[in-house]
Amino acid sequence: MSNPVLVEALRGALTESRHRGAVAVVDADGAAVLALGDVGQPVYPRSAVKPLQALPLVESGAADRYGFGDEELALACASHGGEPAHVEVAQRMLARAGLDAAALECGAHWPSHQPSSQALARAGGAPSALHNNCSGKHAGFVCVACASGVDHRGYVAADHVVQREVRAVIENLTGVGLGADVCGIDGCSIPTWAVPLDRLAHAFARFGAGARMGQKRAKAAARIRAACAAQPYYVAGTGRFCSEIMKRFGARVLVKTGAEGVFCGALPEQGIGIALKCDDGATRAAEVAMAAMIARFLPMADDERAALDRFVRPTLRNWNGIEVGGLRPSAALTVVPGDRRETRDP
Amino acid sequence: MSNPVLVEALRGALTESRHRGAVAVVDADGAAVLALGDVGQPVYPRSAVKPLQALPLVESGAADRYGFGDEELALACASHGGEPAHVEVAQRMLARAGLDAAALECGAHWPSHQPSSQALARAGGAPSALHNNCSGKHAGFVCVACASGVDHRGYVAADHVVQREVRAVIENLTGVGLGADVCGIDGCSIPTWAVPLDRLAHAFARFGAGARMGQKRAKAAARIRAACAAQPYYVAGTGRFCSEIMKRFGARVLVKTGAEGVFCGALPEQGIGIALKCDDGATRAAEVAMAAMIARFLPMADDERAALDRFVRPTLRNWNGIEVGGLRPSAALTVVPGDRRETRDP
Repeated sequence: MSNPVLVEALRGALTESRHRGAVAVVDADGAAVLALGDVGQPVYPRSAVKPLQALPLVESGAADRYGFGDEELALACASHGGEPAHVEVAQRMLARAGLDAAALECGAHWPSHQPSSQALARAGGAPSALHNNCSGKHAGFVCVACASGVDHRGYVAADHVVQREVRAVIENLTGVGLGADVCGIDGCSIPTWAVPLDRLAHAFARFGAGARMGQKRAKAAARIRAACAAQPYYVAGTGRFCSEIMKRFGARVLVKTGAEGVFCGALPEQGIGIALKCDDGATRAAEVAMAAMIARFLPMADDERAALDRFVRPTLRNWNGIEVGGLRPSAALTVVPGDRRETRDP
Repeated sequence: MSNPVLVEALRGALTESRHRGAVAVVDADGAAVLALGDVGQPVYPRSAVKPLQALPLVESGAADRYGFGDEELALACASHGGEPAHVEVAQRMLARAGLDAAALECGAHWPSHQPSSQALARAGGAPSALHNNCSGKHAGFVCVACASGVDHRGYVAADHVVQREVRAVIENLTGVGLGADVCGIDGCSIPTWAVPLDRLAHAFARFGAGARMGQKRAKAAARIRAACAAQPYYVAGTGRFCSEIMKRFGARVLVKTGAEGVFCGALPEQGIGIALKCDDGATRAAEVAMAAMIARFLPMADDERAALDRFVRPTLRNWNGIEVGGLRPSAALTVVPGDRRETRDP
């Protein structure tokens, strides 16, 4: 059994490429709202769970101790573009704990934000671990260790107290026990534990609603959500999907991308969580699928719907700026059973 | 009916992502050697047919008139990385016709070869159309027009004599009539006509063997093949799949990548052509699938097989250089029916 086609890439009169995948939408009680494809299959969430991975930063008291505000907490949830402002906040987080880039164990890479990358090259610079898209999350991990009086060195290892805490949070919110059999190593060297999509969606429903968890965790979740809503630029960067969506919808939507076509999100007012994965790992398709889910489940004004449309149906342009095609969500994502507006032949 | 999984991406103990697609291997007489998935579906070949698109450059006499050798002909077949040597040859091609970068209608983009891109930024430069990965092909088009005494301006349009010639060559070699209904616009603004995969494979079998075509075309094909075999660096660039494979196997293998997960190739000594497309458009998977086809159909020495293995089963490393997983061809690509060596339970 293969998963359904979620997104099509059109060119000329033909469908050029197709992205299959699975989508789970679940409420805070764990009830399925929508299930497309195999939502029980364990999926490495990668960076899509960064908002959950940031909970220990608040719960441990580290965020308060180091005086972190919205920018720092948003960056702790980020896969950022390595823009100067991102780098500066990561550096500041480490400085508050008396450390610098040398404490980061995520590795270095050039900024994904092209103008920042070119500016760095133009200045004769080279990327450091601060430019790594995960540097905010890692700075947060380092601060958790320092605030807890634990040696931060080796904080990326699965058996370090920081990663054990992170795992416990994810186990608690997903309701899934996570063992070595479902553990992979992420791009930034920390463990990533595979979790069924429907359980990830449930975790995000709970995280978004602050429901079915202790008061302390609910308060920490609310603070992280508020930080992302207030400073969405720090969650991704200029022109990026997560930042643009949260800039537009504020606290009504939390979205977070992950590598290999994963996307997680929450619609707090609707009390639902969303988790999806494109089988092939394509980010372009995961973004369209997430945009389609927001269009489907979030009540919104006409101007908001118009603004969202460029993410639901993005245009593809070539190097001369000519429109050559576009991405489109498939009927599996957009056709609501029994909804006559969406059916072609009522 | 969905196409079979061709390539799996592994991480930890799990399969993280899966790439489906179709593969056609056809001999010069048009007989199917292997057909996986829907090989009758029209596919935009994109840059994978550049070696065929280069035929008018030789057949028109332009290549001779402007004194083009292996470097120029290889670059005319290239999706190059925009490295300085690529840019220099494209510039030289245009200069022979008394023109410069202003004649190119492909648009500009930063070199895909990262060190070249950074060096360009460091020098305070900006990319021109010469850095476009298609600049060699476009320089060739311009030269065809000039040598034919035709105005080169507008050479990217489907009704310009250059594109009409290119279409006629592809119609001839594939045996498929190409109309507006299967015409898309490529990234570099020229038309791309969708052709069923098995017909693309047949075209490459004929191109590789110089079979079932007039003497002039067979001679032009041989000259282009020899140019790619002699100067594979100019077909792609440093560390790139096409260049590395042709450097290793010389005239025994012709391979050319195309956008959106297309790959075409020929094994001239075996008289077969290969055309494949990953449904989702993933280049990483198309490369693995093509490598697996070479491993399956090209007789080779043990050291050659060992060298090919890093393309058949590439390792995925993270930013710290840690091995986190890899790509693997699926059994559909590697298991030869009736071949006991490949079956798990003989």
